[in-house]
Amino acid sequence: MINFKENAELNTLNHSCAHLMAQAVKHLYPHAKFWVGPVVEEGFYYDIDLGDDVIRDEDLPRIEKEMKKCAKDAKNIVRHEISREEALEQFKDDPYKVDLIERMEEGTNISMYTQGDFTDLCRGPHVENTKLLKNFKLLKHSGAYWKGDEHNQVLQRIYGVCLPTAEELEKHLADLEDAKQRDHRRLGKEMAMFMFSETVGSGLPMWLPNGFTVRRELSDYIMNKELAQGYIHVKTPVVVSTKLYKISGHLAHYKDDMFPIMERDGEEYCLRPMNCPEHMIMYRSTLHSYRDLPVRIAEIADDFRYEASGALTGIERSRAFVQNDSHIFCRPDQIKEEIKNVTNLILDVYKDFGFEEYSFRLSLRDVNNKEKYFGNDELWETSEAQLREILIEMGVPFYEAEGEAAFYGPKIDVQVKSAIGHDVTMSTIQLDYQLPERFELTYINEEGEKVRPVVIHRAILGSLDRFVAFLLEETKGKLPLWLAPTQIVVIPVSPEAHGAYAAEVVDTLRKNGVRVTLDDRNEKLGYRVREAQTQKIPVEIVIGEKEAEEKAVTVRRYGSRQETKMSLEAFVEAALTEIRTKQRAE
Amino acid sequence: MINFKENAELNTLNHSCAHLMAQAVKHLYPHAKFWVGPVVEEGFYYDIDLGDDVIRDEDLPRIEKEMKKCAKDAKNIVRHEISREEALEQFKDDPYKVDLIERMEEGTNISMYTQGDFTDLCRGPHVENTKLLKNFKLLKHSGAYWKGDEHNQVLQRIYGVCLPTAEELEKHLADLEDAKQRDHRRLGKEMAMFMFSETVGSGLPMWLPNGFTVRRELSDYIMNKELAQGYIHVKTPVVVSTKLYKISGHLAHYKDDMFPIMERDGEEYCLRPMNCPEHMIMYRSTLHSYRDLPVRIAEIADDFRYEASGALTGIERSRAFVQNDSHIFCRPDQIKEEIKNVTNLILDVYKDFGFEEYSFRLSLRDVNNKEKYFGNDELWETSEAQLREILIEMGVPFYEAEGEAAFYGPKIDVQVKSAIGHDVTMSTIQLDYQLPERFELTYINEEGEKVRPVVIHRAILGSLDRFVAFLLEETKGKLPLWLAPTQIVVIPVSPEAHGAYAAEVVDTLRKNGVRVTLDDRNEKLGYRVREAQTQKIPVEIVIGEKEAEEKAVTVRRYGSRQETKMSLEAFVEAALTEIRTKQRAE
Repeated sequence: MINFKENAELNTLNHSCAHLMAQAVKHLYPHAKFWVGPVVEEGFYYDIDLGDDVIRDEDLPRIEKEMKKCAKDAKNIVRHEISREEALEQFKDDPYKVDLIERMEEGTNISMYTQGDFTDLCRGPHVENTKLLKNFKLLKHSGAYWKGDEHNQVLQRIYGVCLPTAEELEKHLADLEDAKQRDHRRLGKEMAMFMFSETVGSGLPMWLPNGFTVRRELSDYIMNKELAQGYIHVKTPVVVSTKLYKISGHLAHYKDDMFPIMERDGEEYCLRPMNCPEHMIMYRSTLHSYRDLPVRIAEIADDFRYEASGALTGIERSRAFVQNDSHIFCRPDQIKEEIKNVTNLILDVYKDFGFEEYSFRLSLRDVNNKEKYFGNDELWETSEAQLREILIEMGVPFYEAEGEAAFYGPKIDVQVKSAIGHDVTMSTIQLDYQLPERFELTYINEEGEKVRPVVIHRAILGSLDRFVAFLLEETKGKLPLWLAPTQIVVIPVSPEAHGAYAAEVVDTLRKNGVRVTLDDRNEKLGYRVREAQTQKIPVEIVIGEKEAEEKAVTVRRYGSRQETKMSLEAFVEAALTEIRTKQRAE
Repeated sequence: MINFKENAELNTLNHSCAHLMAQAVKHLYPHAKFWVGPVVEEGFYYDIDLGDDVIRDEDLPRIEKEMKKCAKDAKNIVRHEISREEALEQFKDDPYKVDLIERMEEGTNISMYTQGDFTDLCRGPHVENTKLLKNFKLLKHSGAYWKGDEHNQVLQRIYGVCLPTAEELEKHLADLEDAKQRDHRRLGKEMAMFMFSETVGSGLPMWLPNGFTVRRELSDYIMNKELAQGYIHVKTPVVVSTKLYKISGHLAHYKDDMFPIMERDGEEYCLRPMNCPEHMIMYRSTLHSYRDLPVRIAEIADDFRYEASGALTGIERSRAFVQNDSHIFCRPDQIKEEIKNVTNLILDVYKDFGFEEYSFRLSLRDVNNKEKYFGNDELWETSEAQLREILIEMGVPFYEAEGEAAFYGPKIDVQVKSAIGHDVTMSTIQLDYQLPERFELTYINEEGEKVRPVVIHRAILGSLDRFVAFLLEETKGKLPLWLAPTQIVVIPVSPEAHGAYAAEVVDTLRKNGVRVTLDDRNEKLGYRVREAQTQKIPVEIVIGEKEAEEKAVTVRRYGSRQETKMSLEAFVEAALTEIRTKQRAE
């Protein structure tokens, strides 16, 4: 997505377009007074006092039309300067301009820009002539308190974008529409995946049956992969004594991001923001010999962080989420192999989901700020070198980022590029020498001495919630068959004539563990087919005369118009294989 | 298990035995002073001041021996009365007796019992002669603060039991040993199922890999059963706004049983004690027509209750647990069928687990205390009659219990008898007319009017934690194959000679989804077999020369000495069938 603020050319163009919009508004609303009209990441806006008038959706095309007219006038945009005192005199009837001018230093000149009948205070720069402002679009409007203070009057804010060419504008609008279509909050609602409720609490997602199915499949998927690789899965409580975080040192550091502490009977409890300390306690509960390591404790773990209301974004950023977490307790000589295993697991999972645009980031400490980090130089140098060596050996492309390490050790972050262009940290592998020390973890080495293990923190899917958000945005809701809440819908052309065989098909699929529904409502075939598409059900089976006769099915995939007829038997086998092998949606 | 307090004959016998013990202690410790010696549920005890002496395990047989001697003396136990003043004079050197006597009303006579050289204050009654006290056993000892006040001196408390016949004593001691063997806390530790940690917090169970496997199997088992019956599964947050419980009316009622309320940014949050209100919100989030009902919202739900420290009992009663919960939203005319379905599901599950000793309890309101209940007479009479009718129609034996209804409606509780004789409420079905009202739930009836649905609360396994505790006690840890954390262990007689084929067997089983381990340690065969038994692994496979040659396996079941040789293929098929059909352990 374009960042209009950071591109100098677009910045000027859009700032000029804000003036053009102000000129048009002044023509349509002669009593309009203007506050500020800056360029922001997503384009420009202007805050306008229209008295009792309020901008409505239908006003935007009217303003656009007037803007076109003004642009066609092809006026030069001319800069001139006047003194602060002159400016105060000239704008004395406009409290907004007076407020702006009074903030400027005494004795300075003030620059103004004029285009035809419109003049505005402005630092500039602007394009030369209004005729260059051709390819614009007003996007939305809202009310905005003057200076953002809820005690002030509400101004009308109108947003827009301007691009150099019609093609670029068209592409940008298409991108915006695409992003809107991909917004996981919209898709989550359309597909009945999750909901929020003010009565339950902000940022606390409630997973509806469809969303729960996806979460269950994902958590089974990753758990089974991990179990097969020698991880052990556990379940630890989400409410714990604060003692844990005093030992770990997180309490002082993390308190503001946590739900409030609960006190009772002289004990302090909290909702855990992470589960590392509990895994340390579990490791510590038995003796370990060097022969037993590595111990890989994993958990699909509910964690809680008190995010600011403004930061909450659907299930991408919420206050309750579930992490695909693990802590690997190993000997120093096992670090390399363990990190290789984790890296391979990450690559394996990305392949399953078809993620191709990702990069590995080696996050190192800032050598000029050593005091920010725990541990000595030698430890850091060795472990950074180890991580680098592993990445090189594995031949995965990576870049290095100084100052991005955790305070307890260097890490490898995997950045995945999302469909709408964001860089998301999906997976992470972190070396930790601190928690083993703080929790006094030990194992008995070959010499019979008690020594400290190393801890590797790692997450593959990251948070399952954020992963679902990412998947929805990535696929526009077209989930692979194995993950789809409803995998198949069976639609008899005539419920009366073909209902019996349709029910047989449903029954066969259900017995094979497929999530299938029967749509035998008395509605037109076209209506039922369209509804299946709206729900983004991966496979529609239509059953008519021929299908019933031949014990066959006619299959249509979501998003395709192609229909394929095949025997029920062949279809069941194909569908089961597709589910079992977790085939990706095309 | 016998309740010694409630059986009059045993009460007298044990109280007399307490005196016998006191007499014996006085012989062995002439400086002993006696506080009280009551009969309790589990037998008798006596609190004794022994000065600096402390009772140790090895003292109990010595005291028992002296008791036998006293009993053999066959002294009559003689009652006589003296005045309060005489008693105070007689016992003036014994502060414990003085304390007791001073609490008695002035002017009353005080009864004393004497047997040979021993006299004690006592209300009685007692058996006639010490020779009747033959079949006793001292069970344990502990320190106990005088009057239970930690500021007082510590007395020595000795526990014992006495029974009329040697056979009865023997049986009781065997029962005690059995209960000890079945204690889920002991089994949970032995089988590495779960752990607790003071640092994490009292009553907050941490599920170790073995326990997590059992929990996962159980939750998959019940979820899949429910999904097949038209339930929809959801996941709702465990931390919620207190608004929810203000609406439901639980807050005032339940606050003391909850973790403390958390306040931040003007909102109050709490850890939920139950999830009903969230399911109400979810139901309310969409429109419902009479045709869409019933809606059966189910959740494997983490809930939190702040139990008093003294009440905590392993995973049977903890502060964090997970409920197999559901709320069925239905029309009044659907109540009967829905309750029948739930009852059938309960019976189906009990059959799977082999529970045979259970009874249905119809819990009705107390008609003499109508003000304790919500709703009008007609509603109660109709719904009670409905529940009764359903139970009769289904032919399940039940009994009625007045005053056991919930305040919001009548219920059916299913009481299961545990191996050690407790009656446990395992499942419950409750009719609720209150929450639909408070949350203003509606559906559109056939006439197009908005009317209230009925809510049926139900739990099948109850809490998964308590269910696991119950199962462990029931089976002494001999779990059915499908539930066992490790299902099969493969032991090559000689790891060197038979290791390769053993690994092949493990591989074949693992590929089929079996939880199997290989024990190829360089330890004697007998040692490895015994260890597999300690871990209660259901199946041991021993691989020797013949097995490797013939591609066969020799199979031994946990708890049996019988060995069966069969082909690997036949074994795999039998094992998979046993797992798939969830066959019970014999």
